[in-house]
Amino acid sequence: MAAENSSKACEAHPMTGGDGPYSYANNSTLQRGGLDVSKELVRKAIAEKLDVEILPSNTFRIADLGCSVGPNTFLAVENILEGVEFKYQSQGMNSQIPEFHVFFNDHTSNDFNMLFKSLPQNRRYYAAGVPGSFYGRLFPDASIHLAHSSYAIHWLSRVPKAVVDSNSPAWNKGRIHYSNSTDEVIRAYETQYTEDMECFLQARAKEIVYGGLMVLTFPVRPDGTPHSDSSSNVMAQLLGSCLMDLVRKGVVKEEKVDSFNVPVYTMSPQEFAAVVEHNGCFSMEIMVGLPSTLVHDPILIAQVVASTIRAGMGEDLKHQFGEEVLDELFDLFRKKCEEHTSAFDPGKGVILLVVLRRKAD
Amino acid sequence: MAAENSSKACEAHPMTGGDGPYSYANNSTLQRGGLDVSKELVRKAIAEKLDVEILPSNTFRIADLGCSVGPNTFLAVENILEGVEFKYQSQGMNSQIPEFHVFFNDHTSNDFNMLFKSLPQNRRYYAAGVPGSFYGRLFPDASIHLAHSSYAIHWLSRVPKAVVDSNSPAWNKGRIHYSNSTDEVIRAYETQYTEDMECFLQARAKEIVYGGLMVLTFPVRPDGTPHSDSSSNVMAQLLGSCLMDLVRKGVVKEEKVDSFNVPVYTMSPQEFAAVVEHNGCFSMEIMVGLPSTLVHDPILIAQVVASTIRAGMGEDLKHQFGEEVLDELFDLFRKKCEEHTSAFDPGKGVILLVVLRRKAD
Repeated sequence: MAAENSSKACEAHPMTGGDGPYSYANNSTLQRGGLDVSKELVRKAIAEKLDVEILPSNTFRIADLGCSVGPNTFLAVENILEGVEFKYQSQGMNSQIPEFHVFFNDHTSNDFNMLFKSLPQNRRYYAAGVPGSFYGRLFPDASIHLAHSSYAIHWLSRVPKAVVDSNSPAWNKGRIHYSNSTDEVIRAYETQYTEDMECFLQARAKEIVYGGLMVLTFPVRPDGTPHSDSSSNVMAQLLGSCLMDLVRKGVVKEEKVDSFNVPVYTMSPQEFAAVVEHNGCFSMEIMVGLPSTLVHDPILIAQVVASTIRAGMGEDLKHQFGEEVLDELFDLFRKKCEEHTSAFDPGKGVILLVVLRRKAD
Repeated sequence: MAAENSSKACEAHPMTGGDGPYSYANNSTLQRGGLDVSKELVRKAIAEKLDVEILPSNTFRIADLGCSVGPNTFLAVENILEGVEFKYQSQGMNSQIPEFHVFFNDHTSNDFNMLFKSLPQNRRYYAAGVPGSFYGRLFPDASIHLAHSSYAIHWLSRVPKAVVDSNSPAWNKGRIHYSNSTDEVIRAYETQYTEDMECFLQARAKEIVYGGLMVLTFPVRPDGTPHSDSSSNVMAQLLGSCLMDLVRKGVVKEEKVDSFNVPVYTMSPQEFAAVVEHNGCFSMEIMVGLPSTLVHDPILIAQVVASTIRAGMGEDLKHQFGEEVLDELFDLFRKKCEEHTSAFDPGKGVILLVVLRRKAD
């Protein structure tokens, strides 16, 4: 129950709330792109993989994990809902289409007020907000028919302790990510990732009904690609090097960089499959890379990447380094991205779409 | 479904959010007093009136309607949860105590961010927030086992249109409440009340399982007491007369008072029973007045009343008259309450505790 949730120390890294120029609501086109290309695939997965026998006659419950503030979450939910309706229709169960109850989940510090205010007026579902980390329990046993999560499970539950401990061999001095760091730092991140994903799968295994689905999209590094080369990792490295530039300019204190780490881990498909296999409660029904939605214009790429990262990490960066450095930092970052657009070549970073099915015990 | 909700035009009158000096969180001791005295009665009602046959083996779902931001809602929920657990135990169903899913409902403009941040750490239930007016549908069919609402259903869904229409015979010029007004204004409020309660009961009748309970506490005027004499109505009248004092002082524009009305209706037990009877879906299991929790010191009474009303209506008043008048208004109001403490005598205003049971169709 909830006690399990609170016993697991989780850090919240909310997207920037509200609807200002740097808000997630206005800077999530990259995530939106992933949603658009996955739309058909998700509906196909529901049509083919959702077990007819689990279709309820009363209420079909959907959870969106790490929903942030919309509009992406509303589009994802609407697509799933249509997919499920189509499933009923295709099974000749037209008259048995149930009511839908949709649970929007994110950290307690997520801007739920904003999320609720922007709920679609003409929605065909009952909506609820669920505060808490998805690395713990969020819902009663066997109560969810379909769980969805987009661009969220690459966020670790916390920065691994050792990487900010100056007495540890895994201290990540002068860097903010594992991907361009020492083996010790990489291992600390890998350990955290494995532990987090096990918690995630265990919690969902209890919450999702037998035969229910879990649809996940998240950035991965292609199998065989070194940590240091995958696109999303390069972004974190470039951001770190910008911060060190600001240290050299005297704008930012070095200790502040030493004690800051980005709690994001970029899995490989193989690694993810291994965690699912080890957990044992889900069968892997679909695992497919989504075509890149990044444009080919390097200046545009740099702009999109910079605004996306600012919306996603602006709050954390503000908290650590002060709001006054953000404009300079992201100006620098955008320029560095322009110089390194080859890092964003298709093949160096992929968005993976995974569909898991809850196996009967 | 949600469409029903949005088709009913509802106004939101949220309590003052946050945790400042005028917040609901810090000025809800009056409501808290009602909670304390009702505590034992609610547990007794659960023990005696909750149908054993409806006790689920998986998830017991509780809704708190008009929850505001706590802490009262958390205390109410904890009490209900203990009452339900005791019911299982007393039936020898100790090993079958289910998980609890608690839905905290209030208007979309309620401060859910604050509510979520103050959720008890050691809670024994899964929590969800549900935005929307309880005069429309909020939950799927037959999904709630026990619905609770404290100090909320006396708020109408809206100010009756006619009372702010200068062309209507029910125009409520120079007053902000029906209780000291013309017969036309009183009828407009009564009509709104009847319509709202019918919507409330219809929605709950669909959402609550057969045999499920609804526990309601709300201020009433004793049967036979004129509208103008009941305590909570006198508060609204005194507030209106303070506003008119400020009009005479030139601080507030008269048109602003003419276009402002408090959408609160103080039912009599008889009126409420009639609405329940007319709806036909619920049996009245308990209807009892709670002992007054007001202290006997007139200065203290006036302080408590003034701070309670400010927390409950401060946002609406600020919106209509400007923040700058609030201090002067409530200073005046507190003094008038001191002069009229006899209006708060027990017998002129009662908190009613009602327990309804969903009948099988």
